[in-house]
This record gives sequence, C-alpha cells and structure tokens, in this order.
Amino acid sequence: MIATLKFTALLLAVVVCRATQDYGYKDVEEPTLGDSQYGSLWPLPQKVQMSTVAFKLSGVSFQIVDAKESSSGASCSLLQNAYRRYDEYIFPISRMQGQNKKKAFASVSELQVWITSADSECDNYPSVTSDESYELSVDSPVAVLKAPKVWGALRGLETFSQLVYEDEYGAKSINRTEIQDFPRFTHRGLLLDSSRHFLPIKVILANLEAMAWNKFNVFHWHIVDDPSFPYMSRTFPQLSQQGAYHPYTHVYTPSDVKMIIEFARLRGIRVVSEFDTPGHTQSWGKGQKDLLTPCYSGASPSGSFGPVNPILNTTYDFMAMFFKEVSTVFPDAYIHLGGDEVDFSCWKSNPDIQKFMAQQGFGTDYSKLESFYIQRLLDIVTTTNKGYMIWQEVIDNGVKLKSNTVVHVWMGNKFEEELQKVTEAGFTTILSAPWYLDYISYGQDWQKYYKVEPLSFNGTDAQKKLVVGGEACLWGEYVDATNLTPRLWPRASAVGERLWSNKDVKDTNDAYSRLIQHRCRMVQRGIPAEPLFTGYCAHEYKGV
Amino acid sequence: MIATLKFTALLLAVVVCRATQDYGYKDVEEPTLGDSQYGSLWPLPQKVQMSTVAFKLSGVSFQIVDAKESSSGASCSLLQNAYRRYDEYIFPISRMQGQNKKKAFASVSELQVWITSADSECDNYPSVTSDESYELSVDSPVAVLKAPKVWGALRGLETFSQLVYEDEYGAKSINRTEIQDFPRFTHRGLLLDSSRHFLPIKVILANLEAMAWNKFNVFHWHIVDDPSFPYMSRTFPQLSQQGAYHPYTHVYTPSDVKMIIEFARLRGIRVVSEFDTPGHTQSWGKGQKDLLTPCYSGASPSGSFGPVNPILNTTYDFMAMFFKEVSTVFPDAYIHLGGDEVDFSCWKSNPDIQKFMAQQGFGTDYSKLESFYIQRLLDIVTTTNKGYMIWQEVIDNGVKLKSNTVVHVWMGNKFEEELQKVTEAGFTTILSAPWYLDYISYGQDWQKYYKVEPLSFNGTDAQKKLVVGGEACLWGEYVDATNLTPRLWPRASAVGERLWSNKDVKDTNDAYSRLIQHRCRMVQRGIPAEPLFTGYCAHEYKGV
Repeated sequence: MIATLKFTALLLAVVVCRATQDYGYKDVEEPTLGDSQYGSLWPLPQKVQMSTVAFKLSGVSFQIVDAKESSSGASCSLLQNAYRRYDEYIFPISRMQGQNKKKAFASVSELQVWITSADSECDNYPSVTSDESYELSVDSPVAVLKAPKVWGALRGLETFSQLVYEDEYGAKSINRTEIQDFPRFTHRGLLLDSSRHFLPIKVILANLEAMAWNKFNVFHWHIVDDPSFPYMSRTFPQLSQQGAYHPYTHVYTPSDVKMIIEFARLRGIRVVSEFDTPGHTQSWGKGQKDLLTPCYSGASPSGSFGPVNPILNTTYDFMAMFFKEVSTVFPDAYIHLGGDEVDFSCWKSNPDIQKFMAQQGFGTDYSKLESFYIQRLLDIVTTTNKGYMIWQEVIDNGVKLKSNTVVHVWMGNKFEEELQKVTEAGFTTILSAPWYLDYISYGQDWQKYYKVEPLSFNGTDAQKKLVVGGEACLWGEYVDATNLTPRLWPRASAVGERLWSNKDVKDTNDAYSRLIQHRCRMVQRGIPAEPLFTGYCAHEYKGV
Repeated sequence: MIATLKFTALLLAVVVCRATQDYGYKDVEEPTLGDSQYGSLWPLPQKVQMSTVAFKLSGVSFQIVDAKESSSGASCSLLQNAYRRYDEYIFPISRMQGQNKKKAFASVSELQVWITSADSECDNYPSVTSDESYELSVDSPVAVLKAPKVWGALRGLETFSQLVYEDEYGAKSINRTEIQDFPRFTHRGLLLDSSRHFLPIKVILANLEAMAWNKFNVFHWHIVDDPSFPYMSRTFPQLSQQGAYHPYTHVYTPSDVKMIIEFARLRGIRVVSEFDTPGHTQSWGKGQKDLLTPCYSGASPSGSFGPVNPILNTTYDFMAMFFKEVSTVFPDAYIHLGGDEVDFSCWKSNPDIQKFMAQQGFGTDYSKLESFYIQRLLDIVTTTNKGYMIWQEVIDNGVKLKSNTVVHVWMGNKFEEELQKVTEAGFTTILSAPWYLDYISYGQDWQKYYKVEPLSFNGTDAQKKLVVGGEACLWGEYVDATNLTPRLWPRASAVGERLWSNKDVKDTNDAYSRLIQHRCRMVQRGIPAEPLFTGYCAHEYKGV
C-alpha cells in the first residue's frame, strides 16, 4: 500500500490557523506553517532519506526484538525497558490479541535492534564520551536499528517512534526510510533547580522522560542553593533536617536520588549534581555550624551570614567529607561546583577575614580570597577522582583549573567573547547564556533559542572543538510542580534540536511545522507541553 | 483554648526565602513578606474585626446548617451544594465518625446560614444587580452567616473557609471574627477564549471553581473567533461542523453549555457569551455561505474573505435567527457583541461594497459602514430583550447605543481617557485594558495588576459610578489545557481583590503575605496556581 508523507499530518492532526493577532505587539516573526518533508522528526537526524513508500505496522504482530547478531539483548534491562516504553508509545491504546492475518499489503513486522560493538555498555552509566550514534533502516518486512552502544539504540528507538504515523483510517504506518544519525554536541543538558522550589520526584521523572524524547543527555541537578537544602546527606543529615523547607516532605532521600539516577540512566541521561559554593549557601548554614562567614555590622556580628567561611580549617574538613559522599552517591564523572556570584560584602565586614587577607597578602582583592577557597575545594574534589564543572566566574577570576575542567558560560552579555576566552585558555566549555528559559516573554520565544549558533564566536577549529555543548536552564524562582513542565516544553525542545542536529538545520519554518507535531506528541504521551500558537492537537491534554 | 493568628502560617506553611535573585533583571520591586493580620483572606473583606481568641472545629460534630430563621435552606440545592463543597474544603481528608466527645475547649459546632430576605433567589441566575453582601459572625459555639440572598451566602462561605486554619497539632481552628462584606464593583469578570485553542470542559469548570474562590462573578466566554467556531448551534449546526477544529471532539454541545452555565450559577457566576462580529469571524464563514465579504484582488475575487458582509439582507436574516437562539441558550441578561478590530481592507476591495457605500453616501469612511452594520445588529439583539456589551471601538465610532449598553475598555494606552470619555457619554463601562493576562513577563507581574485603580480617571462622581467593574482577559493564542490554569492563577487573583475590596486596600506587602497563602490554598484544593516567588507550600501540587 502506498501512502505519502502528508498523512503524517493526520497522525497528530495539528492545524495552526493564522489568526490576526492584533491584541498586542509581537516579539518574534511568525514562522510560516507548511508540511515538513521530515514529518514530525525532532530533533532532525543528521541524515534522512525518506521514501513515499509506506508500510503498515500490525498491532498483532509488530515487535521490537534483539537482532540475532546483537551483542546485547534479552539480558539487558536497559534495552528491554526501552522496548516496552516505545511499544507503548507506538501502540498507546491496545495491542490486539490473536492470530496474525495474512496481509494484503506490505508491512514492517519487526524492528531489530542490533548492538554492533562487543561491549554494549548496557550496565554502564552514560558519560560525556558515550557513543550515541545509530543507523536506522526501515523496510518491509524488517526494520533494523544498528548502534555501537545501547545509547545509540535509545536515540534510534525514539527516532523510529517518531516515524510512525496513522493513515486516514488510523492504521499505524511508516515510510521506507534510511537514517544515519549522531549528535553534533556531546553535552546536551537541562538544568532544573530544586532549591528555590522543591520539585516532587514525579515532576523530575516526567521531565527526564521528555528530555529523552528531545535527545537531551544531561540532567544538571541544581539541587541545593540559598533558599533550601533538600539533599539528604548521610554524613551530615542535619543539612536537610535544618536546611530543607521541611525535613521529610521536601527532601530527596538517598533512595530518591538513586531512583532518579537509574531512571535517567535507562534513558541515556547523565545526572550531574551541582553543589554550589562558596556563595548560594545560606541553607547550608542552618545545619552546619561555623560553615558560613558571620557578617559584621561595625564591630560586632550582625547575626546574618555570608558565603562559606574560607579561612577556617573546619570548612575544608567539612567539604572533604561532604564531597567524598557526593562523589559516591552520584556516579557521573563530573560534579558541578558552582562558584558563581560570590558577594564580597560580608567577607569585607568580618575582622577575622580582614586579618587573613592581610596575612595572605591579598590586599583588598577579595577575588583572591575566593580563588583561594576554590583552589582548595578543587584539590579536595580531585582526590575523589571526579572531574568538575564550574560557572564562568571561576575562570574569569583566574583560578588554576585541571585541564579537563568544564567551564559553564552563563552570563547573558557577549557570550561569544567569553567562549573565545575560555577556549583560548584551552578549556572545555558548555553554553547556557542564551538559554535561560526562566526568562519568559510574550510570544514564540522558542525561535530565539533556536536561532542561537553556539560556534559563532571567533576562534580556531581547535577552539571550537572545545565547545562540547550546552544546557537549557530553568531556574526555580517562579516555577514549581504547578507550572514547570508546560513552561519548559516545547521551549527547551528548540535547544534540543540546536544541540543535536547539524548546524545547517536552521530553517525556522520547517522547524515550526515539525515542532508543532512534536509538541502534540509530547501531549499525547502525557506531558503538558504548551502550545506554540493558536491551533489544536487531535487529543488535547487530559490533565487540568 | 487560646491561640493567636500566627498559627495561620502553619496551616499553609508558606515560607518565602529571600534568595538573592541575581540571575537577571527585576521588573517589579520585591514586596516584603510579613504575616498579615488578616491571615490568608483573599480578597480582603470590606470590614474585618478579628480577635486572637481561637476556637476549634470538630471533625465529628461541626456542620454547616440552615439557620431556623432562614428564608431558604433544605430545598435550595444551590446552598446544599455549597455546604458540601465548603465542608470538603475545610475537612479535605476525612470526617471522623463517632460520638462527639465532651470538649475541654471552646469550639464552633455550627455555621448557621441565614438568608434574611423573603426571596433568597436560590433558583435564579445571578445578575449584575445581585446582592452579594453578607455578614459573618464567628463565635463559640455558633457562627452565623447572614445574607439577604444566596449570592452573599456563597461569598460568605468562601470567607468562612478562608478563616479556618490548623493549629500546631493540625486541629482545625478559627478565631472569633466579625465581618461585614460586599463588593466594591458589581462586575468582576474573567475572559477565557475557547476559539484560538479549544478548552476542554473540565478546564473551564476548574477555572470557574477558582473564580469563586477569588469572588469573581462573571465568566466572559469568548467562545468563537477567527480560528475556530466550537459553539454548536442547533439552528445552524454547520457552523461548528465546518468551523470547529473538529466537528465533535472540539465543540461545545448544548448540553455542555447548559452544564457550564449551571456549574457557574451554583457559584454565583454569570456566563456572558461573546459572539464577536463583524470582524473576528473567519470561522463563521466556513459553515455559512455568503456570510463573509468576498475580498477582491483587482477586478476578481481573491478567494479569501473579510468581515461579515454588511450589505446583504441575508446577513441580517442569519443574525436574527442566530442571536434568537443565543438569547435562549444563555440566560444572562447581557450578550457581548464584540465589534472590535474590524479590518476595512477587504471591504475596500469589493466593488459591491464600494457601490453600496456610494448609495448610502458614506463616501470612503468605512467606519460608517461598520456603524451601519452594528446598528442593525443591535436592533436585532434588542428584539431578544437582551442587553449588550461591546468593545470600545463601537462607541469610538459613534454608533447609537441603548442607554443600558456596557462598554468594554480594552485598549492599552490611556485607558483613563477612554473611561472619562465613555462615562461622559453616560455609558456603563467595564475595564480590561490593564488586565490582559495573556501578556506574560518575567517576575511578579501580579503587582502591576494589583496597583491599578479603576477610578483614577478624571470625572464626576456620577461618571465614576458608571464604572461597574472590570475583567481579567486571558486571550488564547498561547494557552490551552496544558498551561492555562497555572498562567491564570494567582495572577488573576490580583484583579479579583482590586475589584472586590475597598479601594484603600492597596498595601502590596500585606497583599503579598495573604496571596502566598491564598495560592497555596488553591493548590491544596487542586488548582495548579503557580508560585509568586521562591518558597513552598506544605502540600505541593499533586499533578505533574
């Protein structure tokens, strides 16, 4: 049976009407809606050849199976879990029971998943060097997904599921297709902030699901900060007992953390925890005496506290024990150490700090004191055999860093200059500056995120290779379980495609057509991704 | 047992931490958080005297009952429904069974609801003249809620439920309190747009619930517009058959409409439908041949259509039949007839229209043609015995209007001048211009809505009396079931208090403290109202 790709539109039945939008200003140009030749694929794979020849997928007989030649399969729970997940996405209502009828048309009866390298990495954690490439060949009667590692198989399963559509009669269909795919950037992250508002586990899990659909591979967990300390430490339980919004309803227990990490691993997502110091630590001080600097008002302590106290040995003893624990709880090779926005006013007010500054010959340059602290912290973390990520201020202040340090560029102005500077110094870097999704505005701001080109800065090819990716950041001041998910999706999807697809993929109109369908697919799969503009999904969101 | 009001904070356990919000600009000043002497009351009643003497509410024995003297009660389903609703809000988990124990402390065992006027209006629809006043006296052992009509009883029940808090041990408590209350403005509306995105019934119902909690009393249902026509007309079923996004999944059947109206009535909320013409009617044209003006490209029709065709008698025949139906389906005394943003370019292109203009002596002033249409439409609607509301352009264009017409001021610039002009002309008016909640921005924009003073324009006392209220508008370009509710609440709550409370209620800090608790209460009752800022609710939202 022959069908053309235009049926794709029927699957998600998305129509966007061009209402006169006269009630106010428009920030961003309206893209034009037309059917994309790539259907609803998001992010767009590196190489796609799609035929107009269409096959059916039978609800009775279709299955995802391990290829005979695969180095991994029945014993790999990561893959078996993924097969179940994607089976449910493709056949959300029911699988018919019964005998497979003799078919009058060509069909795809199997998707064979073939892990081609000897070590599938099934039981590993994903890492910055994980191979996520895959090749997908859809033909009748068999489709084949080849990937060196399970990570590529996960990405290919998502792509396969995005190729399936319904024809006019609701029959599951897929076109003959050849795809070779791999990510442009190896670090494609999303930052969520569980300190400004506590995020219930299921909110985090739901967003890990959505991340996988958008081929994100790093969950940057900004887990603690000034307002609250929801991380339950085994070594220092008083940190969350005193520092969380509530000692057991608003904390992440070790079991919670373990579950989140495993849930993410099954989707090829790294969990990089951030424990930001020496600033952003007000909540730490509640459960850990003498950790923070006492601020002075004139000659006496004011009762308030500043950043971590960098002049006490007890501070470093604490940090050594704390990060030793963190390094075992979070399996990822990297820890994000923060280091941003250190306010010097409290340090300046404190006579002991002043004395220490004089002893060390720092003069009145408090960034030297900050560097002194960071340097010692980095030495401590180095002993745990972890690499570290830090916010850009740390390098701006001239702290000596290990060569494998990842510098996180976040300041909004002139991020190109900062990328140039960081890579000139030879450091690996990731970009977040243009992708602070907590800043909302009226209209289609996804386009603004989409149009960013991370390698647009001046630099050599070697410098550009040092930019390993980026992260969309959703800081928590104004989001919690009530509004986080629709505010994040599909805005973060724009960043997802920018980081995965080829740099030439920048046709906003084509992206618009695909993204509208992709967002309806997210809604269909249960995530309340908000609309891009006037229009509808065949099946609207079922929650409230 | 004596408790002080500070326990209120424990009920909702809201803490807002003052995180340094250094990641970006701030639009609006941060309010300061302190406990309000008014606990979590929102909107603030006109007169509140609250004692520090606290009583308990027993889960075994407390009940809401009809006062013996009440003119309404057991046979009034509006009240019985409300008792059940508020009982569940006050005791959300369970009512204990069993014998009432002898109490060692003072308690409130009953809330007596006393309708004082002979006609309770139990079976009426609420109207612009409905009396919503009430008096609430909380004492031991009996609290009394007196109201002339059921409408005031509904408002008083909400207030009573807002007075209940939990003490340190979770015991339901309420302080001795005297309240006299009535709304400052009689029209306190919310506009939702079900054309740009279809809003599933349960989204509408959920928001009607939240409206009642915020003492809104008008649901302005912008039901159809250019993009889609989801209103299923019995007389012209092809309008939604052809004009809705989908002929039965994305429409409101007569039963749906009836249910929404009754659900709203039970909460003292009017449903004012808007059928906007002659612009904003693209979707009407799909199911009604010759209704819209054919646009011309040079000498021949271009295939596209403009506003309603004002020169054909068939247009007026259609409108007469259509609005006859609408006037029976929607019981409210008013219909909103729109009349905004008429684009003249299509009319100008059409040679038949040009000829008609010449015949009528309109020259090239197309606003005269618009007025011609509107005038005839108003005459038609007048025969249905309905009053009408219209957007401000209609009066700006000098159309002759019935004296009881309500003019809806929406244009953002200089709304004070428009209010002055409209009231000078003697028309009743409502204000929406500063309350377009579809325009989102970073930060606490509720304050901007809160600070609006609707009567700040230049005018006599008589003119000011003509401003009967306002409406918060959430146009639908960027909202649907996925994100509408958290985007609306608690931002609309700011408008709710502005329209209900005394004009001197404008202390942003006090409002902040109450609103934080009010939003956690909405979350607790199941509405995903978004956070105002960093902090938490004792019970976070349970959806995703």
